[in-house]
Amino acid sequence: MNQSLSQASDRTASAFHREAARRHLECLAKPPGSLGRLETLALRLCTIQRTLSPRTKPRRVVVFVADHGVVAEGVTAWPSSVTGVMIHSILRGGAASSALAATCGAELVLVDVGSCSEPLPPGPRYEVRKVGSGTKNLARGPAMSLSEFEQALGVGVEQARRAREDGMNVVAAGEMGIGNTTPASCLSVLLAGVSLDQAVGRGAGADDATLERKRRVVGQSTARAGGKMSEDPRAAIAEVAGFEIVAMAGFFLEARQLGLTIVLDGMIATAAALIAETLAPGTADAMIAAHLSDEPAHAPMLAKLGLEPLFSDWLLRLGEGTGALLAIPLLDAAAAIVSHMDTLESLGIVPTEAAHDTP
Amino acid sequence: MNQSLSQASDRTASAFHREAARRHLECLAKPPGSLGRLETLALRLCTIQRTLSPRTKPRRVVVFVADHGVVAEGVTAWPSSVTGVMIHSILRGGAASSALAATCGAELVLVDVGSCSEPLPPGPRYEVRKVGSGTKNLARGPAMSLSEFEQALGVGVEQARRAREDGMNVVAAGEMGIGNTTPASCLSVLLAGVSLDQAVGRGAGADDATLERKRRVVGQSTARAGGKMSEDPRAAIAEVAGFEIVAMAGFFLEARQLGLTIVLDGMIATAAALIAETLAPGTADAMIAAHLSDEPAHAPMLAKLGLEPLFSDWLLRLGEGTGALLAIPLLDAAAAIVSHMDTLESLGIVPTEAAHDTP
Repeated sequence: MNQSLSQASDRTASAFHREAARRHLECLAKPPGSLGRLETLALRLCTIQRTLSPRTKPRRVVVFVADHGVVAEGVTAWPSSVTGVMIHSILRGGAASSALAATCGAELVLVDVGSCSEPLPPGPRYEVRKVGSGTKNLARGPAMSLSEFEQALGVGVEQARRAREDGMNVVAAGEMGIGNTTPASCLSVLLAGVSLDQAVGRGAGADDATLERKRRVVGQSTARAGGKMSEDPRAAIAEVAGFEIVAMAGFFLEARQLGLTIVLDGMIATAAALIAETLAPGTADAMIAAHLSDEPAHAPMLAKLGLEPLFSDWLLRLGEGTGALLAIPLLDAAAAIVSHMDTLESLGIVPTEAAHDTP
Repeated sequence: MNQSLSQASDRTASAFHREAARRHLECLAKPPGSLGRLETLALRLCTIQRTLSPRTKPRRVVVFVADHGVVAEGVTAWPSSVTGVMIHSILRGGAASSALAATCGAELVLVDVGSCSEPLPPGPRYEVRKVGSGTKNLARGPAMSLSEFEQALGVGVEQARRAREDGMNVVAAGEMGIGNTTPASCLSVLLAGVSLDQAVGRGAGADDATLERKRRVVGQSTARAGGKMSEDPRAAIAEVAGFEIVAMAGFFLEARQLGLTIVLDGMIATAAALIAETLAPGTADAMIAAHLSDEPAHAPMLAKLGLEPLFSDWLLRLGEGTGALLAIPLLDAAAAIVSHMDTLESLGIVPTEAAHDTP
């Protein structure tokens, strides 16, 4: 009861700030609507932050890393050892995520929430919070126990709190984990009702035989997990998820509670967003979807969350938060027009009569 | 003969650098092609700059401003006096272009190449190079004389040289001028063979009656100018162009000669690009198209230049270089992946056999 009252008051406040932002955008010194989707984004940003002076800095991307027992089924073109190598590459600044984070002025924090690799020497912005050394093989049984699920969720919650303490206004979550499109596909079936055919894509380059194995694994595992869904959603999700995906879900739901603006990356991050929305409805209200991935499941997953991607045809499928990092400068641009543009009135501009010939 | 030899050698050099960039992108530590259109953009940037270390800073947007005699025909919803007001707004940092330029770290220079307004007090990054006080009414005769055409072109050439001298690597041209979608529509018909119906859009908010007047004006003027096209393209263009549009054309063709990378804004800038390509074929090779405008003529105009827009569905139609400024951070991202990412080989990563099951 309290929760639904607070949700109703949340919605009223959102509608109020949305309307104020809409009116402000209409008054700016430009033909109405002439900044197209940049105006839509500005509206969204103002609504999430409940302000006409949105802040997009400082920002941080947290890259959650883990391994997946399901790689034993041959669902991916890359060995699990790559996960450890990529931790190294990300931390030394040589990965796509590191390059893009540096370029857009976002801090990057890497959290190992369950890789099979030996930890690297301690370093700034590198945290080891292993729930396990990879999940179990979800094709043969639950990927993780309920207690592991809660632990992984907590790792994400902790990172959202840290981001808030460090003064972040905008956050994104990225992931790295060989094999993690398979759990993400399972979650798209389980939580967004995506069809099996659409749920399974080529991930990081699966060939036809790999794709077929992947589809079989996803079909069997989601059939198993689906049975638990109505009774115990956490248990159902734990059957097929990954540590980094659950950690991202914890990160999202806490970030939203703390009033942070969330930029949502691609298909894996969206699987985590579906978990967060299942556990805490309304989490997606704090999200801006960066892009529509090349993975076929992504469109229905975003639709389930009611999100429209900023880049609809960029065909990204790398993960690591790269799509979110590519979109962050667009948030800066949206914030800039809201905060810095003159109004028509302040400049004394009025359209000629021609503008009023027809309504 | 010399020119065509040099063009052939240009094309060979471009192909060489494109191939080198393609191979480099293939070796980076990510699944091949997984950064989608960011890789395409990186390829383009490397090809234009003939390097594997593209530079996107410093950058500058030059906003060319002028008025248009054709507003006497009632082709726009805004009075010409708005041009002067907007010069003031842009210079004080309150316009969309100023806000976006500041956000992405681009210098903004405003050049009055022929407004009807009194010049403002001198200031940094504000130049008055008036060819006239607005063009003549293109519905009744030539918009400008041939000597005015050359003078306007020269204003743009001068700005490109200045940009080069000041060390710019990336440039964009923006425009402001009440009524300037009408000359741009004429140029789309004249230089890209766009049909009259597709050539004329609502610009900055024209209603149905205005649209009809605009279509009649464009039809009559392009019929008149078209007759001169084969004999004297400059005279034909001068019939229907605007001072700021011709200045942008001069800016583009000189920028390309000087090896600058050009980010192309919306429909008006693309009309200028068509002039530049007509006068100096190959100019578009130095261009990256920022976005597909909401103006219906823009798609066939870009197609004529062989350019693919980065934002295909953002529905921008403001001008001032805003679309180009929105796209500039994407160039930074593209340059970052080329310059900073590890290669698969340097990390010792090889795909498992699964990746080779089928070719």
